[in-house]
Amino acid sequence: MVALAPHHDGSEVYVPGGTPSLGDVVPVRVRVPRAPGGEDAQVRAVWLRTVRDGEPRLSEARLEREDEHESWYVADVLVHNPVTSYRFFLDVPGGYRWLNGRGVFDRDVPDAADFRLTIHPPAPSWMGDGVVYQIFPDRFARSAEADDRPLPDWAQPAGWDDEPLAGGPGVGTQFYGGDLRGIEEHLDHLQALGVGTVYLTPVFPGRSNHRYDASTFDHVDPLLGGDEAYASLSRAVHARGMRLLGDLTTNHTGAGHEWFERAHADEASPERDWFYWTPGEPGYVGWLEHASLPKLNYGSPTLGARMIDGPGSVVGRYLREPFSLDGWRIDVANMTGRYADEDRTLEIARRIRATMAAINPDTVLISEHFHDASLDLAGDGWHANMNYSAFTRPVWTWLAPHDSTVPFLGLPVTTPRRGGRSMVETMRDFDAVLPWSVTSRQWNMLGSHDTPRLRSIVGSEMVEVAATLLLTYPGTPVMFAGDEVGLTGINGEHARVPMPWDRPDRWDSGTFEVYRRLVALRRGSRALREGGLRWLVVDDDAVAYLRETSDERVLVVVARDAWTGARLPRHLLAGDEPEPLYGGLSLDVTPDGLDVAGDGPGVGVWRLA
Amino acid sequence: MVALAPHHDGSEVYVPGGTPSLGDVVPVRVRVPRAPGGEDAQVRAVWLRTVRDGEPRLSEARLEREDEHESWYVADVLVHNPVTSYRFFLDVPGGYRWLNGRGVFDRDVPDAADFRLTIHPPAPSWMGDGVVYQIFPDRFARSAEADDRPLPDWAQPAGWDDEPLAGGPGVGTQFYGGDLRGIEEHLDHLQALGVGTVYLTPVFPGRSNHRYDASTFDHVDPLLGGDEAYASLSRAVHARGMRLLGDLTTNHTGAGHEWFERAHADEASPERDWFYWTPGEPGYVGWLEHASLPKLNYGSPTLGARMIDGPGSVVGRYLREPFSLDGWRIDVANMTGRYADEDRTLEIARRIRATMAAINPDTVLISEHFHDASLDLAGDGWHANMNYSAFTRPVWTWLAPHDSTVPFLGLPVTTPRRGGRSMVETMRDFDAVLPWSVTSRQWNMLGSHDTPRLRSIVGSEMVEVAATLLLTYPGTPVMFAGDEVGLTGINGEHARVPMPWDRPDRWDSGTFEVYRRLVALRRGSRALREGGLRWLVVDDDAVAYLRETSDERVLVVVARDAWTGARLPRHLLAGDEPEPLYGGLSLDVTPDGLDVAGDGPGVGVWRLA
Repeated sequence: MVALAPHHDGSEVYVPGGTPSLGDVVPVRVRVPRAPGGEDAQVRAVWLRTVRDGEPRLSEARLEREDEHESWYVADVLVHNPVTSYRFFLDVPGGYRWLNGRGVFDRDVPDAADFRLTIHPPAPSWMGDGVVYQIFPDRFARSAEADDRPLPDWAQPAGWDDEPLAGGPGVGTQFYGGDLRGIEEHLDHLQALGVGTVYLTPVFPGRSNHRYDASTFDHVDPLLGGDEAYASLSRAVHARGMRLLGDLTTNHTGAGHEWFERAHADEASPERDWFYWTPGEPGYVGWLEHASLPKLNYGSPTLGARMIDGPGSVVGRYLREPFSLDGWRIDVANMTGRYADEDRTLEIARRIRATMAAINPDTVLISEHFHDASLDLAGDGWHANMNYSAFTRPVWTWLAPHDSTVPFLGLPVTTPRRGGRSMVETMRDFDAVLPWSVTSRQWNMLGSHDTPRLRSIVGSEMVEVAATLLLTYPGTPVMFAGDEVGLTGINGEHARVPMPWDRPDRWDSGTFEVYRRLVALRRGSRALREGGLRWLVVDDDAVAYLRETSDERVLVVVARDAWTGARLPRHLLAGDEPEPLYGGLSLDVTPDGLDVAGDGPGVGVWRLA
Repeated sequence: MVALAPHHDGSEVYVPGGTPSLGDVVPVRVRVPRAPGGEDAQVRAVWLRTVRDGEPRLSEARLEREDEHESWYVADVLVHNPVTSYRFFLDVPGGYRWLNGRGVFDRDVPDAADFRLTIHPPAPSWMGDGVVYQIFPDRFARSAEADDRPLPDWAQPAGWDDEPLAGGPGVGTQFYGGDLRGIEEHLDHLQALGVGTVYLTPVFPGRSNHRYDASTFDHVDPLLGGDEAYASLSRAVHARGMRLLGDLTTNHTGAGHEWFERAHADEASPERDWFYWTPGEPGYVGWLEHASLPKLNYGSPTLGARMIDGPGSVVGRYLREPFSLDGWRIDVANMTGRYADEDRTLEIARRIRATMAAINPDTVLISEHFHDASLDLAGDGWHANMNYSAFTRPVWTWLAPHDSTVPFLGLPVTTPRRGGRSMVETMRDFDAVLPWSVTSRQWNMLGSHDTPRLRSIVGSEMVEVAATLLLTYPGTPVMFAGDEVGLTGINGEHARVPMPWDRPDRWDSGTFEVYRRLVALRRGSRALREGGLRWLVVDDDAVAYLRETSDERVLVVVARDAWTGARLPRHLLAGDEPEPLYGGLSLDVTPDGLDVAGDGPGVGVWRLA
């Protein structure tokens, strides 16, 4: 039997929906399973601890209801500060326990993993409705119009079926010539997959295939079809009920950017103080010391109006017609506004969100931060983050083989293989430092244009296990175009493989079907989209969890290998039989419980209530 | 055999002394013991990970030296940001490890426990030289002059030997009449104990025995002897080579304060906006809703100059002659400047420190924060904090009996008894979120005027164990007057027992001798004052650790009960025999190691090198 633990999270089962205002009183609930060990293990009382103006306060929670399986307590949180943190105190014989976002602790713990209520609205709910689909424009699809465009001087043309370079000279200039019209021509594919939101990496002109080195923000790259093609794509995407997101380098421009060229040539130019000038070569600060990517200086009194503030800024302009973007993904958000003793990151994020909200409050603002973004995410700036830390990396390490040869993102080793406990502890550690309103919107990915392909890291047999995690875990599932047809690649550059539209031999329809069914599964289950998360089994070779709303309970089991199986409490099942939703694992109902077989690798998803 | 772990901390063995400036390159070292398990467990390479402008970077550490016991690696940290965080990456077969302030992890961990270099100077070193001795003026000593002073209207006189009230009406007005002259008359006692710094709780007039409800900050309470007595005490303290600290309520005044009375009576008064006015009763914001303690509003443009900014402010005035305070302890520092959507705490702390540094850079600024102070301590504000979280509370829970009847500070339960692992994990959790420059100055206490007495919590038999921890742990040892002669008390108010100068029956000379010897021990060992901290044994009933400087290694063993004992590596001992410094436990040198007997309760301190 799995021992259930006292539980709380920010989902609707425990916290009323909606964004509170300062001064609101929000009732929060905690679920306390009855311990099977008898009186000595029983929780005698539950208290709420909030931190108000820096000082913790305790108030006793009220027993709201109980049955033979669990007790429910409720307590009132006064939302006195913009971010009000709280946790629960469990009075048990022989000591006490704290319940915070990382779980139950039998000693004092710091505040970082406390639960949080925030007065800042979360990302709009549409982001969670369907999968977010990331497209790298040079590699998705090439329309017939592309053939008529002159090749730029920097480009080294590649055939559509060529293998992308994995490094060395040419890695940034190998040019396949995908364009926006090409994307528009393939929206059927996206709809068949169940895509809700299309996210394009940059579309501004640059001197590279990735376009993170913009030469202007004033128009869309003619190589992609220009402003008109972008507007047309936006209309087509929206006509199908999908959303469109852009990608903006707020941290830097390309060295060929018109602003930088003027600033560099003329110390009296209005753009001069938009950059950081330094002694020695190259004479200015670049992103990670790259001279090709001069860093923007938001200490300038005039950069803001041009870049981030108001409807005429770069941020604002593309949210308006005819582009009508539904939001931005911000490149290198973690470094934007940070330099030496300057730290304007939170302020810049807030200004960007304010610009966006004034134009269209239904837009979303996502940060790129590969690491610990906790201090950047609790305010009124970035809605959510690209969740490498709490999702991508721990999932990879759980599913990688012992003999992986794929370098582990940013570290000087190949991807290690670690147990389920390690994965779940890592996920909880990085999830718990954020308000649920953020965690439940984080961009979960199995890969991106900056990483190896999932399939190359974990192998084909594990793709379904990984995809099941992606589509059943709290947050926003984000796919990199091509994962759904089984593309491979050993690093970020090598993984930017063109979509093999005309190569059925390289188009894995089975994988497509896995993703399509899992996306549909998520779209058909409010619990999977919005429910809370309770861990039931954390075994080195298998994990199981519940996703729950007030009216639905879904059980997810994923196993990377054969394992011992588990008996889950019978009362988790509301009727006589679970409703199988997905996967090949079996779940047997017995008088003593719900028996999960120890088969593996495999996955299983059931509706229990 | 105890398995030694890879180790780093901010002490001189690992990080050069001094406070770096922006742009400095600081070599940091890590000690990697050779694993006894053979090649598979060996560290193949060590990398340094720093976070620069929000982005982690890795650089390989250089193997500096190695012998049969350990390898030393060194790497360079560029101090690019005011607080530059770093950790170590250990490349081991089958995966990798992170080494941060909490220890070694075999999975990814958030940044909160990273090591840190900061450009902000630490508290002056004199604070660690001798014990800080806390005096509650009403209860320390009463001079003959006190008899001549008229009793104030609020006071309820008590006889010097009366037991303090533990609660109810009168707890704040029970008046013993201790005064500053009384303190001055007993400085011999402090010197005999080895006191380096005298810290007095507030000396401003109020309407309570604790004086945290000041009616003015412009002069010292005449009931204590007034400004002249304070100046005289300061001269006497300094003449003996000791220091003197004050206690300031920056968060609030008393409702009887002259500023508040004017502000309350006259909406046009200059002091009106120094407070928060609200609808309903009492019409203003008080500390924890106490109408007697109106909260100060630093949003006011004029409060700062009067209270915290510049030599004429309250903060500044008492650092100057004739009072010449060596620093301030700030009451309710965690709430100062925090109210609803206002959070000026870091700014206020910075302004206070700036005022102090301009008058005397050798002064110290200590915050009161009972909880997780990590976000308040990394800047150029508070030097260090009253360390309830990482010291007082975990030590209490380790040494409390199973059947404690003493309420546990702020929680609705009696003090629990927990194992040594729980204690050490808690200490490491709360220590690791701070730069070493702060951790190594934190105010460690076994109790204060706000807590029960140590002896009432842990019992007489455990006092020496607790005191040994206090005087051998990194940080600043702080004693509450009377602990050294065995006073008792079951809560903060009840523990404010007058010193029994004339009651040999209540004066525990044995306890005094324990503290006196331990203070002397610390004063005689630079490793105990300034050394790093390596945990060797973490057992539920005993813990052992090393304190090390470049030229000294001290071993500390403390046991609350009989335990299994431990064999420590022989090479930790430089010569043939350890030098016993304190305590009754035995340490035997054998060819196989240093054998610590499993006796307990007891303590032992040895110099190994």
